[in-house]
Amino acid sequence: MARWGGQAHAAMQVPGPSLREAASMYGTAVAVFLVILVAALQGSTPPESPFPYHIPLDPEGTLELSWNVSYVQEVVHFQLLVRELKAGILFGMSDRGELENADLAVLWTDGDSAYFGDAWSDQKGQIHLDSQQDYQLLRAQRTPEGLSLLFKRPFGTCDPKDYFIEDGTVHLVYGILEEPVRSLEAINASGLQTGLQRVQLLKPNISVPALPADLQTMEIRAPDILVPGQETTYWCYITELPEGFSRHHIVMYEPIVTTGNEALVHHMEVFQCAAEFESFPAFSGPCDSKMKPERLNYCRHVLAAWALGAKAFYYPEEAGLAFGGPGSSRFLRLEVHYHNPLMITGRRDSSGIRLYYTATLRRFDAGIMELGLVYTPVMAIPPQEPAFILTGYCTDKCTQLALPPSGIHIFASQLHTHLTGRKVVTVLARGGREREVVNRDDHYSPHFQEIRMLKKVVSVLPGDVLITSCTYNTEDRKLATVGGFGILEEMCVNYLHYYPQTQLELCKSAVDPGFLQKYFHLVNRFNSEEVCTCPQATVPEQFASVPWNSFNRQVLRALYGFAPISMHCNKSSAVRFQGEWNLQPLPEITSKLEEPAPHCPPGRGQSPVGPTVVSLGGGKG
Amino acid sequence: MARWGGQAHAAMQVPGPSLREAASMYGTAVAVFLVILVAALQGSTPPESPFPYHIPLDPEGTLELSWNVSYVQEVVHFQLLVRELKAGILFGMSDRGELENADLAVLWTDGDSAYFGDAWSDQKGQIHLDSQQDYQLLRAQRTPEGLSLLFKRPFGTCDPKDYFIEDGTVHLVYGILEEPVRSLEAINASGLQTGLQRVQLLKPNISVPALPADLQTMEIRAPDILVPGQETTYWCYITELPEGFSRHHIVMYEPIVTTGNEALVHHMEVFQCAAEFESFPAFSGPCDSKMKPERLNYCRHVLAAWALGAKAFYYPEEAGLAFGGPGSSRFLRLEVHYHNPLMITGRRDSSGIRLYYTATLRRFDAGIMELGLVYTPVMAIPPQEPAFILTGYCTDKCTQLALPPSGIHIFASQLHTHLTGRKVVTVLARGGREREVVNRDDHYSPHFQEIRMLKKVVSVLPGDVLITSCTYNTEDRKLATVGGFGILEEMCVNYLHYYPQTQLELCKSAVDPGFLQKYFHLVNRFNSEEVCTCPQATVPEQFASVPWNSFNRQVLRALYGFAPISMHCNKSSAVRFQGEWNLQPLPEITSKLEEPAPHCPPGRGQSPVGPTVVSLGGGKG
Repeated sequence: MARWGGQAHAAMQVPGPSLREAASMYGTAVAVFLVILVAALQGSTPPESPFPYHIPLDPEGTLELSWNVSYVQEVVHFQLLVRELKAGILFGMSDRGELENADLAVLWTDGDSAYFGDAWSDQKGQIHLDSQQDYQLLRAQRTPEGLSLLFKRPFGTCDPKDYFIEDGTVHLVYGILEEPVRSLEAINASGLQTGLQRVQLLKPNISVPALPADLQTMEIRAPDILVPGQETTYWCYITELPEGFSRHHIVMYEPIVTTGNEALVHHMEVFQCAAEFESFPAFSGPCDSKMKPERLNYCRHVLAAWALGAKAFYYPEEAGLAFGGPGSSRFLRLEVHYHNPLMITGRRDSSGIRLYYTATLRRFDAGIMELGLVYTPVMAIPPQEPAFILTGYCTDKCTQLALPPSGIHIFASQLHTHLTGRKVVTVLARGGREREVVNRDDHYSPHFQEIRMLKKVVSVLPGDVLITSCTYNTEDRKLATVGGFGILEEMCVNYLHYYPQTQLELCKSAVDPGFLQKYFHLVNRFNSEEVCTCPQATVPEQFASVPWNSFNRQVLRALYGFAPISMHCNKSSAVRFQGEWNLQPLPEITSKLEEPAPHCPPGRGQSPVGPTVVSLGGGKG
Repeated sequence: MARWGGQAHAAMQVPGPSLREAASMYGTAVAVFLVILVAALQGSTPPESPFPYHIPLDPEGTLELSWNVSYVQEVVHFQLLVRELKAGILFGMSDRGELENADLAVLWTDGDSAYFGDAWSDQKGQIHLDSQQDYQLLRAQRTPEGLSLLFKRPFGTCDPKDYFIEDGTVHLVYGILEEPVRSLEAINASGLQTGLQRVQLLKPNISVPALPADLQTMEIRAPDILVPGQETTYWCYITELPEGFSRHHIVMYEPIVTTGNEALVHHMEVFQCAAEFESFPAFSGPCDSKMKPERLNYCRHVLAAWALGAKAFYYPEEAGLAFGGPGSSRFLRLEVHYHNPLMITGRRDSSGIRLYYTATLRRFDAGIMELGLVYTPVMAIPPQEPAFILTGYCTDKCTQLALPPSGIHIFASQLHTHLTGRKVVTVLARGGREREVVNRDDHYSPHFQEIRMLKKVVSVLPGDVLITSCTYNTEDRKLATVGGFGILEEMCVNYLHYYPQTQLELCKSAVDPGFLQKYFHLVNRFNSEEVCTCPQATVPEQFASVPWNSFNRQVLRALYGFAPISMHCNKSSAVRFQGEWNLQPLPEITSKLEEPAPHCPPGRGQSPVGPTVVSLGGGKG
């Protein structure tokens, strides 16, 4: 039989005092077990914290996670502080935040000994020890605040039971063991107090840019409005910059959410109005109100965008978002999207965005560009689909017209869908070949729409194509989900943050409506004429009457992958660039990028094959 | 560094002469290599051979593989005999027999030392050491015939670079290293002498049944015919049993292929003619000849079926295939399918089948039933498809009518497609739920169509559904591949061998032709009216004029998964069971079986992480 390499145990870091006892245990116990006497750690000082990221896992803050990322080793180091340890703790990751089918590190006691092991939960929440131990315990330490566990985990392990830590959202999960258990297999997650926290684990290694000395702030907030008692409200509020406000650069902004309304405010945007109008009428009301002045439709130049889960946003040091000064309107529109599914009435709100700006202009003007799908019902998702993909295009024809010869540089991106969105990705293609991912989130959640800095700035040249695909889960829907503004309708959007600014503000597509009507005719021919193809029928009505058998589903999928598109290649103020934008061919892609896949860590043969014994001396854990 | 296990030193002999020869042929570097091997392993005796299966890997027989299978440990032990070792050998498995993207065990020398390691080749044939070593060397031994390597490999390793050893065909590959190499990474498979051998590695643990004492044989052979100089010929030959031949049981049969025609004879079947006719006219000629008597269409009861690659076939001890006696015809039809792509003329052939039979009837009559797709062009595969699936059904309505209340028991199965077939699987469904796989080959090759005994007898009850799916690769085709008899057309067939015999001989389906015409109309509506939907156009002509864009491909796929089917639920003599068999609904399947997936061996953390050094006794190293 081949034996382990000698290095297997050398990777353990056991703080000084425990070394002697660990060594004696090592001599007597089976070699696969690693021993730490936590009691012996009393009085040893914790190492200087090397963890830049922190997050509370539970609402009460009894579990606190810190972590860092090594892109060279492809490893995440976690430090989990457990303030009130009972009989153990489960911590890990899962696809959408369930404790079923989760990849878990478990600390547990059987009453006598304590153990740490890499485990997984099956679809019933039953816990099993993993055949390969990839969560590696490095230290367990009592601190005045509680038990601190230090462990590490490679991004990918090539163990099919393990979660692959990717860019984008990670759903962290936890569970609290109240009582000792006979064995790991005696734990079922469904009986535990559990929870989830969404986080971007693999934060890019980008430091916060230096802020200028002459930083000023301005708050664009709703004027203490009464939130309507309806599910979806887009509130529009017009405000204005001071008379004579000169050209400035926004270098940072952050949300101001009225205390108590955190769950109500879904996203907010600040738009600048079009310069061609002298003035805009004051307004504060729902954006779809008949009272809303027509002219407000000309307030569409995005200055700032925030959505649920995002924090403050910083521009790169070489760029800022210009506003004020001649040639730009003093009028701003704040749009607040209230998501009020419980139809709460009487709630007042003054949420908005705080802009940080400077009069010392940076080298480049930054811009925001919207990619993805046009908000139109012609793009629809059949009900009961686990993973239906819709794709929006920014075509070569549009980038050729709208981008400068030296291209633009994307430094941040915010992905956006409504409730059924599960994945979003934008890929850049050049010469018919996919070249690079602009932003990808394979565990996207509509409840965690951060603006994310890109790890690497992506440059887009004239003639490039940008392809944005959203994956939706409509398993809980009875009818088709059509594109649109309502929270129960869907969107597929990637807000790109880039410089230097161009006139192109929106580069999106939708299927040609004529081809969609051919689809409805085809449905009727293969079924029993369910769909009204008369002029009175609206597209949502037509989709609502499609019988969703496998054929109609697959043909719709095929249609979206084949039919010509209608392009929106728009400047600000909803004005299209000149050209023919209807019945455009889909971009031809001859070579695709590979899906992300884990690198199997080369040294994984050295990981222990069983759980680590954690002898919690003194008390019972 | 990990070292060889203790057994490695236990079994070695030093045949001096071969050492000298090798040293003179390949210089001092290889001599050192051999010294190393010999010294390490000298002075022990080889164990008794526990390997029931043997196969030559190369046409010259210089590489000979023996193996056994442990289903308990899920491990295959290999013994590879290398008769003329040069600088090393590559052996392994790949999806279709390429040495690219292969999973390999490699023995190599750098001139100083010799090594054995688990490796893989990338898509360019470049060899890389595997991060996890799953081919485990147990012994290297000089024998009078050559170097014998004993190593083992789990069925599944959970290493994504590794081949998963499944039921069905395995494509074994080899390559011969002529010169020492600096390192494993210096090897590129594209420069080597290489080859492949197809084999069913995971043979079922079934012993050859005892044969009766009164065994007799009979040869049904083509009468020295002149094989036509055309690509596809089905040759029909009528022969007859002796007058007064009583009821017997066929208990075994084997092919007789005329020497030199091994590549020409694609498959052969022996049919019994219908009992209702007193006699059948003699005939020897192509089955599609205008001279062929009409009546020969009533010779369709299968007695024996052989296809390229198959060996002798044995019935289970409790069953035999009845023939002879009252109520059965004395007339037999031999059908030989000649595949003659080089259009060779002047070749004579007397191939056929040798039947082994007994007058001592066994308990059950056995039968052969044909599942899958009807041979009709309405089932077609678009060109340029890497993995297009067609499915044929044996519906609950047919099994309800045709099977006895206690059901039938399937003990063997032969899968059959023509050239583009890549996978075949038959699944049994009951109550709308898939229950069990009858036979699956995920690496099916049309060049290796064995009749395979099932690991476990599968019982089919009245009301069960049998679903046979074939996966085709048409990447080398320019036009659609339609269903039919020609070798360039396709089939999807599973010949079931079962008992007790029933009247049901054929249970197959095809899409309803009316729905296919709706498809052609739809293609015209979305494209430019390319397909003639006039009555004169044949279905192959219609398919040939479809423009194969993504939409038309996907809609055809959707059609086959949705449209009603026409069932062939046939007794012998091409007679349908009574009932309505047109426009039948597709069986509804609410729950599917999971795809086969490897069990990760629990102890794999213990496998060495690097190559094994083949070291090193008194000599250098």
